[in-house]
Amino acid sequence: MIELYAFATPNSVKVPILLEELGAEYAVHPVNIRQGEQKTPEFLRLNPNGKVPVIVDSEGPAGQPITVTESAAILIYLAEKTGRFLAREGEARVRAFEWLFFHAAGLGPAFGQSGYFQKLAPEPIPAAIERFHGEAKRTLKVMDGRLAQVEYLAGEYSIADIANFGWIWRRAFANVDFAETPHVARWYAAIEARPAIGRAIAKIGG
Amino acid sequence: MIELYAFATPNSVKVPILLEELGAEYAVHPVNIRQGEQKTPEFLRLNPNGKVPVIVDSEGPAGQPITVTESAAILIYLAEKTGRFLAREGEARVRAFEWLFFHAAGLGPAFGQSGYFQKLAPEPIPAAIERFHGEAKRTLKVMDGRLAQVEYLAGEYSIADIANFGWIWRRAFANVDFAETPHVARWYAAIEARPAIGRAIAKIGG
Repeated sequence: MIELYAFATPNSVKVPILLEELGAEYAVHPVNIRQGEQKTPEFLRLNPNGKVPVIVDSEGPAGQPITVTESAAILIYLAEKTGRFLAREGEARVRAFEWLFFHAAGLGPAFGQSGYFQKLAPEPIPAAIERFHGEAKRTLKVMDGRLAQVEYLAGEYSIADIANFGWIWRRAFANVDFAETPHVARWYAAIEARPAIGRAIAKIGG
Repeated sequence: MIELYAFATPNSVKVPILLEELGAEYAVHPVNIRQGEQKTPEFLRLNPNGKVPVIVDSEGPAGQPITVTESAAILIYLAEKTGRFLAREGEARVRAFEWLFFHAAGLGPAFGQSGYFQKLAPEPIPAAIERFHGEAKRTLKVMDGRLAQVEYLAGEYSIADIANFGWIWRRAFANVDFAETPHVARWYAAIEARPAIGRAIAKIGG
């Protein structure tokens, strides 16, 4: 049994999407980040970094319970445990890791800061908006170039697609659209049509 | 044979460190990012995202050459190819992925933006400096909490340590020091003392 601590955030949504794709049993424990619940002492014992999502798997390595943080690390953990949605070898595995880190280090932070400076910052800072909004649009175009060549980021549908889907699902926050990225639009529509997606979003209240 | 395209950057340095640890044969091709060489058409054919480091391994999957981008994906590729510096299973493997993504999505972007807004931005923006400098110091304290409990981030020395070493090596750019993170200081000194580190830094001209 998997306990999932999550909220309707770009990083949280990835995990229930994979759990739904796997047909796994799991229970959702909402962590209301708007009310700061990710910074309570109780939650910080689960993740000292104070971020959702977190899972606790009662059947971890050697049959012992394990707590896993960092959304992409959770995806890899579940994919390797089940042998699904991550190629075991070859170029497809290399590409999956590339696009997991493209998301974690590039597109994700750019979308997050683009949204923060446009929607949440106490005062508008044009130079910061230009920096991060520009980077959000640039990274989306890089992804578009990849998706002009392949159906999914690592070839076949994988956790690399699920990871990148999170922030692109919340693209309005970053003030980004698909006007100049038709291949991303095609890829997004194909993923959004999967039954697992709607079920996952409903479960975290998105 | 491995061709390494790199410069003396926090992300580049990780790759020669692992290559030196592995005793691998490799050739360094400097990409001067101060002169924008990472945005030339020739380089963008190697990495459309316009970032160092990149490797080309003449002996990739199925004996075919492969190009790999994203520093952490390169570390995983080399660790899995050689079976070293990344546990094959168990909790140590889960922790290694957690700390690879902690670096990619958390500490790395925070250090990078902290440095940008304090050292490179055309005009000082106090709110942006406070945001990113604060996050750089916070993430370092989270790492310190982990290193109070374990010798290395995933238990034994691994690519998770090598990944996090990159930005902490360049901590002066982010205006961060070890005054409040003694366990990070101990960890950093232990890694810096490894012969592979000095050789790697010398090779990329750092």
